[in-house]
Amino acid sequence: MGFALVFASAISAQANDPLPSWNEGKAKQAITQFVKDVSAAGGSKFVPPAERIAVFDNDGTLWAEQPMYFQLEFAFDRVKELASKHPEWKKKQPFKGVLEGDLKAVFSGGKRSLLELVMATHAGNTTEEFSKIVKDWLATAKHPKTGRPYTDMVYQPMLELLDYLRANGFKTYITSGGGIEFMRPWAEKVYGIPPEQVIGSSIKTKFELRDGKPTLVRIPEINFIDDKEGKPIAINQHIGRRPIAAFGNSDGDLQMLQWTAAGQGARFCLYVHHTDAEREWAYDRKSHIGKLDKGLDEAHKNGWTVVNMKKDWAVVFAFDKK
Amino acid sequence: MGFALVFASAISAQANDPLPSWNEGKAKQAITQFVKDVSAAGGSKFVPPAERIAVFDNDGTLWAEQPMYFQLEFAFDRVKELASKHPEWKKKQPFKGVLEGDLKAVFSGGKRSLLELVMATHAGNTTEEFSKIVKDWLATAKHPKTGRPYTDMVYQPMLELLDYLRANGFKTYITSGGGIEFMRPWAEKVYGIPPEQVIGSSIKTKFELRDGKPTLVRIPEINFIDDKEGKPIAINQHIGRRPIAAFGNSDGDLQMLQWTAAGQGARFCLYVHHTDAEREWAYDRKSHIGKLDKGLDEAHKNGWTVVNMKKDWAVVFAFDKK
Repeated sequence: MGFALVFASAISAQANDPLPSWNEGKAKQAITQFVKDVSAAGGSKFVPPAERIAVFDNDGTLWAEQPMYFQLEFAFDRVKELASKHPEWKKKQPFKGVLEGDLKAVFSGGKRSLLELVMATHAGNTTEEFSKIVKDWLATAKHPKTGRPYTDMVYQPMLELLDYLRANGFKTYITSGGGIEFMRPWAEKVYGIPPEQVIGSSIKTKFELRDGKPTLVRIPEINFIDDKEGKPIAINQHIGRRPIAAFGNSDGDLQMLQWTAAGQGARFCLYVHHTDAEREWAYDRKSHIGKLDKGLDEAHKNGWTVVNMKKDWAVVFAFDKK
Repeated sequence: MGFALVFASAISAQANDPLPSWNEGKAKQAITQFVKDVSAAGGSKFVPPAERIAVFDNDGTLWAEQPMYFQLEFAFDRVKELASKHPEWKKKQPFKGVLEGDLKAVFSGGKRSLLELVMATHAGNTTEEFSKIVKDWLATAKHPKTGRPYTDMVYQPMLELLDYLRANGFKTYITSGGGIEFMRPWAEKVYGIPPEQVIGSSIKTKFELRDGKPTLVRIPEINFIDDKEGKPIAINQHIGRRPIAAFGNSDGDLQMLQWTAAGQGARFCLYVHHTDAEREWAYDRKSHIGKLDKGLDEAHKNGWTVVNMKKDWAVVFAFDKK
């Protein structure tokens, strides 16, 4: 080939790369090989499009989760907003801690305190009202470190991966420990994932006629925790098919990956390993948030793909680009 | 127009009729008008395809439910099959009644007895095992009146309606009081509705490693009853959008229709009224199965479409055709 031809061909290869924010390497190679395998009609690993189900954890897999789960920041902001209607909160933990910025006091109450916070800030409204509250919050709230809207804190390589899978006939789902109704209002715009493909934790709702108008009111009672063993259970309940690909970043995703891997035919499991203290955060086996310990061992043992964020991702956040 | 042209045009109109098993009349007219309205780009009632969600009850709406819910027939057949492993059933109701064909004894125990039957026949296996059990049963079981496989007892006009809606960008869902895992194994083949678009009642599942292999085991504990108030709640949980069209046949569907009707923009609610004692069954306000009483009043009051099966359907079951 002459120079012009080589040059044109290199340009075109780059333009055709569906994963431009992924550096060349084992992880990228494993993804594209899997997608080629299951899409190749007549090939031994072919999977019909209807069965190309891919499930993604959200916190730490599609968007960041440091210095604290974003939904917790939402709950804190709601406490501050609702405080004038709850004068008793000034004297009562964990609310007192939130109002005084004393996180140690907030977290010292453990799971029970956090549950109390969630119920006080997530229940009592209709599903439509709650959706609006979430959207309004996202429109103004800023991440404490980057000063960016939380919906900017999504991983550019994962957005490309979602698009790439969908372009190859996959149906992409979120399966998060976060609230299903907290994610639905923005998941379509940010990830291209419609409400019916979002699975998450939930509180119960109650059918109620308000002024003769039927509504669903969110009540302060846990319905389902979509974490660990809960993930395959919820996937089965919502989708009714075993996924052929699963993506996570913590031990909370392990059962989802195990269950995905145990199906017949071509399978793909991937862990995002947070290794980039400069562009993002570096944490794994000893982290309180997004702990990745058993999962990392299982990944190595089973030959699952582990993304080394620092090495494998040319770009982390879209706002870092260029 | 000359005769030939008139003739050709009549033929073509018939060939193009998406609902050939529906007689001309108010019900058919209301359906096609609604579909035209929401599909007309730029029209005042236009609804974007992603929001064209249609939900269908199953028993009595998509397939028959007489002389008894088909899933109950399944449970009875399972009792007979499992009886040799449960010698105690010979002396214990409701199992004794099932084994002796004494339905009165079976039903005299009320809801509690039926629940016991369901748990004994639907739990204890993995999700994959249960799916196979359902498929195997459907392959041989016959409807007591028609002698046809249960999956032949589906309403031809409703199959056409499902196709017609999908051809116009709708996403069609089942929302049934019946078991979600009882319907999924065959809903795609029979109705063109994939597992992820089937919503129903469920028992709990448990994530378990069996010989090191991750499975979901069905446990004898109610997870959710998808009936009455449960229907809008489950729709919100699974889909996260309010449907724009809802189809049912009993008071158990009323809250689903009310909730659908209460949304903004174009809405369509339809009740199938069982009025044809010859080709199917005739029952409504006083029936134990598929009771339609309050729902009928609400339908008339709100101007919902009520299908008079005898008058509106040219064909009921596909096997009646020609």
